Amino acid sequence: MNNDLDNLINLLSKLPGLGPRSAKRAVLHLIKRREGLMLPLAAAMDAAAENIKTCSTCGNVDVQDPCTICIDPRRDNTTLCVVEDVADLWAMERTKAFKGRYHVLGGVLSALDGIGPEDLNIPKLVNRATNSPITEVILATGATVDGQTTAHYITDRLEDSEITISGLAQGIPVGGELDYLDDGTISAALKKRRQIE
Amino acid sequence: MNNDLDNLINLLSKLPGLGPRSAKRAVLHLIKRREGLMLPLAAAMDAAAENIKTCSTCGNVDVQDPCTICIDPRRDNTTLCVVEDVADLWAMERTKAFKGRYHVLGGVLSALDGIGPEDLNIPKLVNRATNSPITEVILATGATVDGQTTAHYITDRLEDSEITISGLAQGIPVGGELDYLDDGTISAALKKRRQIE
Repeated sequence: MNNDLDNLINLLSKLPGLGPRSAKRAVLHLIKRREGLMLPLAAAMDAAAENIKTCSTCGNVDVQDPCTICIDPRRDNTTLCVVEDVADLWAMERTKAFKGRYHVLGGVLSALDGIGPEDLNIPKLVNRATNSPITEVILATGATVDGQTTAHYITDRLEDSEITISGLAQGIPVGGELDYLDDGTISAALKKRRQIE
Repeated sequence: MNNDLDNLINLLSKLPGLGPRSAKRAVLHLIKRREGLMLPLAAAMDAAAENIKTCSTCGNVDVQDPCTICIDPRRDNTTLCVVEDVADLWAMERTKAFKGRYHVLGGVLSALDGIGPEDLNIPKLVNRATNSPITEVILATGATVDGQTTAHYITDRLEDSEITISGLAQGIPVGGELDYLDDGTISAALKKRRQIE
């Protein structure tokens, strides 16, 4: 072992999903593919570090500010989907089911971690929702305690406006088998059962 | 999404242990830590790509050739440990239990994958073992079918020499509970049982 290797292993192991052991495996993989993977990866990181910006309107990351989604004229200006993180925005976009605009909070309210409304993009959200043609805000925060607390807080803040506030439906996931689902999901799906027409 | 991001996600997802989804998470993590992680990681990869060499004696990777282990005068010249990969060499070194020299095969014999003796460092191993003060070769290939086939093949090739050939002991791992071990390990440990003195 030596400094160049140790340094690379150490930095790689800071990525989410890679521990010290898998970072070592990744480095050996990179050394075997120097021209094909290691140098292109280093160049891609340099390029991304230089070119990627955070959209000042919605909080998405892109090579331009405002981002591609914010300036796309084909998207619906009246619907705003509020998500916790850019990863959630990407997950929504993957479905191709939503054609409105986004707002990335950059996290959720958390008393434990000391994260309050001012640490998130909430003031900007309120400002954006009340000064634009938006008629519906879809709160797509996670179905966790913190995610739902954040959704409640935003609902309170937007109460006085004319905007419709909605949330994602909860229930059995598509393809879900009751036997493998947690009790909370089954209870929620039972409580929110719908009449079959 | 866009080219710089897609390119980085695509390259990162080629690392072992990272799929497309975890590569996206890693990229978002990197974008949040541009100065602290992304740029240093790119620089570390460039440095490693330039400086890391494969040792022409043993097959280890290091900033110098011959490597630190091969030129270390405190190590025992009479014992040679044969491992499949550099990762196995690192695992052996972690234990600090071996003080001899190494030989990295760069894989195992595999009829299925079409890997024969000439694709591995075996001719060099035979040459090295018979033209040096080596008195014992420890075959530390994996306890897999291919690993054991490779060990058998090397044993055959070194049969005519005066060298002692040994292999790692097989049995119950330290801390192993019988209930959680596979049947093969238990059978092997029973077959190779030793009298307690």
